Amino acid sequence: MDIQRLVCELKTANDSKIVMLVADGLGGLPLAPGGLTELETAATANLDALARRGVSGSMYPIARGITPGSGPGHLGLFGYHPVRHLIGRGALEATGVGFRLEQNDVAIRCNFCTLDAQGNITDRRAGRIPTEQSAPLAGKLRQVKIPGVEVFVEPVKEHRFVVIFRGAGLGGNVGDTDPQRTGVPPLQPVAHDDDSRRTAEVAGQFVEKARKLLADQPKANGATMRGFSKKPDIPTYEQVYGVRAAAIAVYPMYKGLAQLVGMEIVGQPNTLEEEIDVLEQAWNEYDFFFVHFKYTDSRGEDGDFDAKVKAIEQFDAIVPRVTALRPTVLVVTGDHSTPAKLASHSWHAVPTLLVAEDSRGDPCEVFGETEALKGALGHFPAVELMPLALAHAGRLGKFGA
Amino acid sequence: MDIQRLVCELKTANDSKIVMLVADGLGGLPLAPGGLTELETAATANLDALARRGVSGSMYPIARGITPGSGPGHLGLFGYHPVRHLIGRGALEATGVGFRLEQNDVAIRCNFCTLDAQGNITDRRAGRIPTEQSAPLAGKLRQVKIPGVEVFVEPVKEHRFVVIFRGAGLGGNVGDTDPQRTGVPPLQPVAHDDDSRRTAEVAGQFVEKARKLLADQPKANGATMRGFSKKPDIPTYEQVYGVRAAAIAVYPMYKGLAQLVGMEIVGQPNTLEEEIDVLEQAWNEYDFFFVHFKYTDSRGEDGDFDAKVKAIEQFDAIVPRVTALRPTVLVVTGDHSTPAKLASHSWHAVPTLLVAEDSRGDPCEVFGETEALKGALGHFPAVELMPLALAHAGRLGKFGA
Repeated sequence: MDIQRLVCELKTANDSKIVMLVADGLGGLPLAPGGLTELETAATANLDALARRGVSGSMYPIARGITPGSGPGHLGLFGYHPVRHLIGRGALEATGVGFRLEQNDVAIRCNFCTLDAQGNITDRRAGRIPTEQSAPLAGKLRQVKIPGVEVFVEPVKEHRFVVIFRGAGLGGNVGDTDPQRTGVPPLQPVAHDDDSRRTAEVAGQFVEKARKLLADQPKANGATMRGFSKKPDIPTYEQVYGVRAAAIAVYPMYKGLAQLVGMEIVGQPNTLEEEIDVLEQAWNEYDFFFVHFKYTDSRGEDGDFDAKVKAIEQFDAIVPRVTALRPTVLVVTGDHSTPAKLASHSWHAVPTLLVAEDSRGDPCEVFGETEALKGALGHFPAVELMPLALAHAGRLGKFGA
Repeated sequence: MDIQRLVCELKTANDSKIVMLVADGLGGLPLAPGGLTELETAATANLDALARRGVSGSMYPIARGITPGSGPGHLGLFGYHPVRHLIGRGALEATGVGFRLEQNDVAIRCNFCTLDAQGNITDRRAGRIPTEQSAPLAGKLRQVKIPGVEVFVEPVKEHRFVVIFRGAGLGGNVGDTDPQRTGVPPLQPVAHDDDSRRTAEVAGQFVEKARKLLADQPKANGATMRGFSKKPDIPTYEQVYGVRAAAIAVYPMYKGLAQLVGMEIVGQPNTLEEEIDVLEQAWNEYDFFFVHFKYTDSRGEDGDFDAKVKAIEQFDAIVPRVTALRPTVLVVTGDHSTPAKLASHSWHAVPTLLVAEDSRGDPCEVFGETEALKGALGHFPAVELMPLALAHAGRLGKFGA
């Protein structure tokens, strides 16, 4: 069943406010079996108070056993089925550097590579050229002009950059030009459908012109292209939920993901405290607020248990400022687990809580992975979180008479 | 969402070992409301220790309320959606007697029946002729020769036997010949599609020739055919999960089901202890081991609560030999419940546990139906068990970036 379609049909408007606080990679693991997770270790008096007031649950981002990247993780939280709504690799890369994709754009992940005199690849990553050197080169490629097409080039990191073609008649179905091995030249871009012929042609011109501009470079004298993709065709928050949605985030990737579902990016905060400043300032302008906190994930990725505990405590500290705004519904969750023990994203369920005047209550006394197993929300997939939030906000009508 | 397709895309290889211990019909019921189930009654110190180390859950084989047969029960455990991957009745019957179906075989469940002088059926089951008499008759039918087709005949039990036609151009879409009543002759086999015309023709010849061979029999002087079916088109464990899988079982049915998904049948054990001998011997040769224990189901089917308790204790006793092998992931489950109280398969959830270094842990102190309700795995369908096992074995990559 497509729950989002049903929700869309049942949506009603009111003046409720929903806040979704997302601590990236929130869920964790004990360092040794039988121990406590990062969240269970952290002193989280504010979140624990919320757990007593609200309802908790154990949320899986996609399906049991599946570890999501940031893209599918957030799409699920936003209520879009992450397997039905795939974000192409190029589109995600563009989104990740904060590029605002438009409907007819084609985005492509590119690598600088090293070519020999015969045009064969000797290094697919141009010696992993440092960002300080590669970013100006990406800037230089903005000189490439192709008639009838706007070309955007954005640096990413090291040998990686992203190219966006904007113009009419550009399909996204073009094969990669990276041959995945050295000693051979890059492949020609090949269109896999009629709509993409023009894109392949434009890509071929781009690579040729780029090569001329890079001719004097010792390492990064060529480019390969992968993951051609258009902006995913995703209905907006306004369309499916009828809410004016604001996204408050520090990092471009999360702003980009929010923008893909039609949220407005509000403010330019650099810290969590500044994010809450923005939340307070924008309070009257929106119905829904997505607030993203990055460092729980970062410290988990670092494999630093204690630092993740501290990040969670920093997250806990801003809770009173959020509750002071008296949101109709407050959701606290993560897009996936990032246990410090694994130093990576994982498949483990994400402890999640929802606080609202009309939640039923459950026996949970604290906010944590084990305690959440007792919660009223049970074990549920991320795509059911938005329907729950909207229902508790009085924003969903009755289904059937 | 087809979770198995996603898992297939995400699979990665490593040198982990996964053991799935299946106690057939494991789940039970208390004899009187408020009492303990068979598993809760049994002394299971080893399984209880696993429950403390790992995570438990309440698994439903197909969907809530659905009682599975052995075929769908095991397909679900193996991660194949049992409703999408149907095993035809003939194919299941052949599989159940250990016949190794090939891609173009058509298998048919057959009954010996009694015909009168006019050729009308007087007994659809030939007086439930005992197996000692029917098996040699099935053997006799191996004399039937049909040009261009290999014919196999295997006894099953009492009046039942199975016929397999092997040859080119044999479709599986032929109607049953059992008219489901007496006083009329068997129906002619009718093809329901063009591809199955030859099969219907071959089946007609088989029945005619069988009748001649059985002409002097007092009871079993005719045969009817039902459940024409080809080998199901199921991707193998190697294809979908990238594991070399071994099946260790005593009974032909379970070997056959494992073979349908491409597992290799290892050893010829006659007892659970011998099954574990085989497990130990084959340890270095495979990545995944399915170990099947039959008697929990048999004693449940007998309606013998105490005997099922003893079977569970026998199952518990071999656990230390399995854990001594240090599998990366150990799963203990059943293919369905078989409560002695009902003396049959049932729809009740199956207590399930998973032990792995990177499982999160939960408050479960013993292995049992009620305790499992507190478990970190929650309530989940059988098809999500393999993704969980693979994830905990480090065999699934990240979905999306």
